[in-house]
Amino acid sequence: MNGAEALVRTLLAHGVEVCFANPGTSEMHFVAALDRVEGIRCVLALAEGTVTGAADGYARMAAKPAATLLHLGPGLANGLANLHNARRAASPILNIVGEHATYHRIHDAPLTSDIEALARPFSDWVRTSTHARELASDAAAAIAAAMVPPGRIATLILPADVAWSDAPDGPAEPLPPTSHAPLDESAVRAAAAALRSGKRAALLMTGSALRADNLAMAGRIAAATGARLLAPTANGRIERGAGRVGVERIPYPVDLALDLLKDLEHLVLVGAKAPVAFFAYPEKPSVLTPAGCEIHALAGPGQDLGLALEALRDALGAARQPFAVEPLQRCPLPEGPITGDAIARALCALLPENAIIVDESITEGRSCFGMLKTAPPHDWLQLTGGAIGDGLPMATGAAIACPDRRVICLEADGSAMYNLQALWTQAREGLNVTTVIFNNRAYATLRKELANVGARNAGPKALEMMSLDQPAIDWCGLARSLGVAACRATAMADFNRAFAASMMASGPSLIEAVL
Amino acid sequence: MNGAEALVRTLLAHGVEVCFANPGTSEMHFVAALDRVEGIRCVLALAEGTVTGAADGYARMAAKPAATLLHLGPGLANGLANLHNARRAASPILNIVGEHATYHRIHDAPLTSDIEALARPFSDWVRTSTHARELASDAAAAIAAAMVPPGRIATLILPADVAWSDAPDGPAEPLPPTSHAPLDESAVRAAAAALRSGKRAALLMTGSALRADNLAMAGRIAAATGARLLAPTANGRIERGAGRVGVERIPYPVDLALDLLKDLEHLVLVGAKAPVAFFAYPEKPSVLTPAGCEIHALAGPGQDLGLALEALRDALGAARQPFAVEPLQRCPLPEGPITGDAIARALCALLPENAIIVDESITEGRSCFGMLKTAPPHDWLQLTGGAIGDGLPMATGAAIACPDRRVICLEADGSAMYNLQALWTQAREGLNVTTVIFNNRAYATLRKELANVGARNAGPKALEMMSLDQPAIDWCGLARSLGVAACRATAMADFNRAFAASMMASGPSLIEAVL
Repeated sequence: MNGAEALVRTLLAHGVEVCFANPGTSEMHFVAALDRVEGIRCVLALAEGTVTGAADGYARMAAKPAATLLHLGPGLANGLANLHNARRAASPILNIVGEHATYHRIHDAPLTSDIEALARPFSDWVRTSTHARELASDAAAAIAAAMVPPGRIATLILPADVAWSDAPDGPAEPLPPTSHAPLDESAVRAAAAALRSGKRAALLMTGSALRADNLAMAGRIAAATGARLLAPTANGRIERGAGRVGVERIPYPVDLALDLLKDLEHLVLVGAKAPVAFFAYPEKPSVLTPAGCEIHALAGPGQDLGLALEALRDALGAARQPFAVEPLQRCPLPEGPITGDAIARALCALLPENAIIVDESITEGRSCFGMLKTAPPHDWLQLTGGAIGDGLPMATGAAIACPDRRVICLEADGSAMYNLQALWTQAREGLNVTTVIFNNRAYATLRKELANVGARNAGPKALEMMSLDQPAIDWCGLARSLGVAACRATAMADFNRAFAASMMASGPSLIEAVL
Repeated sequence: MNGAEALVRTLLAHGVEVCFANPGTSEMHFVAALDRVEGIRCVLALAEGTVTGAADGYARMAAKPAATLLHLGPGLANGLANLHNARRAASPILNIVGEHATYHRIHDAPLTSDIEALARPFSDWVRTSTHARELASDAAAAIAAAMVPPGRIATLILPADVAWSDAPDGPAEPLPPTSHAPLDESAVRAAAAALRSGKRAALLMTGSALRADNLAMAGRIAAATGARLLAPTANGRIERGAGRVGVERIPYPVDLALDLLKDLEHLVLVGAKAPVAFFAYPEKPSVLTPAGCEIHALAGPGQDLGLALEALRDALGAARQPFAVEPLQRCPLPEGPITGDAIARALCALLPENAIIVDESITEGRSCFGMLKTAPPHDWLQLTGGAIGDGLPMATGAAIACPDRRVICLEADGSAMYNLQALWTQAREGLNVTTVIFNNRAYATLRKELANVGARNAGPKALEMMSLDQPAIDWCGLARSLGVAACRATAMADFNRAFAASMMASGPSLIEAVL
């Protein structure tokens, strides 16, 4: 067998089942090998932002890596922004980046670039495979690197001749997985003491701390100590809704964030970093906690957060502490004009059991998170790295990971435009994704930020740079042109009907909510 | 004035007139400064591939840099592929990349990344400005770096506080420009001797050697010596058509390229590198010239290619040598079904005077270049770095640089999908761009490449990865949804009518040619 086939068989041996791909000439042997070997689902995307964003969404739901297939430096470059988001979500991903044949590189053909240098800023592990014989073991090392807790980005660069040359040793066996870093018992004691102090305290949790089981432990801790349960503004995945312990997210607007945290005396970090402002603003602090607040790192992202919460719970003697979960409480169906709040209420009225919500609704969808805390249980996936354009791709990948669940993608119109090509992949794969476009015809968040950063008295030229209404984008037309059913809602009655119908339909659909 | 305003005034003082932008929070002060200071045209794009690709097209036609405005590392990342293309075209571009405030970086907020590391692989010059007082001189240095012959990519990273802090010294004066590297007289003599030897010889020219005046000198040299005039497969800009000296481009398919060059004994490089295959193929050479061919570098890209050709012409005593130019010879209007060849003939029948053709038609449009050599004079812009997706953005930038000329963008359907967001910018700016989509519903080039790389007997999974027909993309729907008039042609009569109408219409339009 050739290197490409040894690589594909190694992926299979490691449980990699999906490859999101936008291949080119240098990847043809890998594509041919995927054809010869049964077992890996190939998902074609029309631009690389969809490839990496889908791999992110897949990893968040499957908790294991998909492979991506990218075409040399520029193909990787196009996928980097969503790798940035994936990395901030600690999503494991294995990138396979095609490269010129090893002997061809010195000629500096037009597509030549320094792929390793390009990969490094958003990868935790980078290697160029140099011999077909070593490709399988390189792939095993890459997968092991991606699975280092809590999840990493590994980039394996695959020269064309390494793929097409003979690999007599065949595929490689899986490497032993890297364990979580051990728990720090003194950190547990310090956190327990802080929570027992009677002072105003909170847990700030992210990563796997936001899974339902771990939240239940946090719920006991909160009930026993009066600590608040907080999460950062953006998180990879939160299991939430009725029957689960809720967390409050730190708001994005810096003034609201400062206000939420202003009385805190102790903050216990569970997988999270000490909270900072998303951006700097003149005369506002970067650090969001008040000066006197003591910060205690219970566990970092590489530690087992469930184990850490269990140890803290037990140190507090709270193993049987009763705790509150969110009740199931649906909203009545809202009527009247379309607003962000009304959409949030409609979702709370109509959300199916066990849905996956991908939230890139930015300004207009801010009330959805709060409103849906009493909706049926669901997962909440967010833009973690601030690199706009993750929503549609992430929804695509989540739907591939969880074919039996409904995926609902809440998208701002500005954000949706970055990787709208993902809609085509949703249509091609027949995925049950409902995209809601919050269409305010603006980069509304920037209008607010213009004032926040102190750039006041904006003139027409500046405001025009934040307007998307000239021309207005026809979202239904875009979706249909890419094979996705679509309808426009200009009143909540339309929206409710369209959303309810979409939950019953097979395949993707898009609802343009005109705000 | 603050740093941002000093920066804008410095851009103006250096003749920078256009800023292609996709801004975010950290760039708000720059946007506000663009508003306060008259003279820079702000062109909004909905994704960064359009920003950098438009700057490339602008630079090719204006021969000076536009500024780009990009939002931190991920914004830059999304624009890198077209910076790769721009760099291969030697297009001068000044990137302004927003960054967190200098004091905010240590907090590793979600959007933080190593922007310098990311910029370097596709930039010739990178600097992070660290003080508002120095921002204007940093900008002057950046523009000077971009203008180093033949044209470079300069990336200036702009922390938010550097933009918003006081810059008491105001804007900076232009730096003296870098001259071309001096001509190598011995290289001129060697090239002249080679061309006089009576052996089979060719000039391989790119960059400014392909402007009409320089081609005329090359024409005299060819007429005096019998040398052939060649250009690489892809070039930034060729002035060509009736009344100009034509060049033959080395074909992309490696077998055709080898065949074209197989008898050469001397090859004189004028701004070009020795020709190599675009990709490596098993058992085919990387180097395209035959073993015995002597290669003479008359001048490299940093030298004045016009001066080099003039010196060579004079060394050959050919200053008054009569030479042939292409005649004006239009095709009759083709009828019948739509094919790539028929479209080429239709363009040759209908092309207006002084058009700009942006060619990213890949497989189906290969006959256009040859067919149009006798069309009215026009410029020919190509995908220079092989990073697919440059066409629509480049056409956008070329139209901004040359508002009085018609821009015709020949686009493969697969390639057009990468940066289709550019259509919206064309509509917003009312640009006279006609996009022709060669819609074969496939990555047709990959089907050929699959066999070329020796991956034979491709099965259904591999072939499916090269098919774009499930679902079929409705190109007219996409264009109209983004504000661009569109029509579908299924026979040449439709195409001819639509194309002729488009040449008279104001604003952008798209013709979907169904192959």
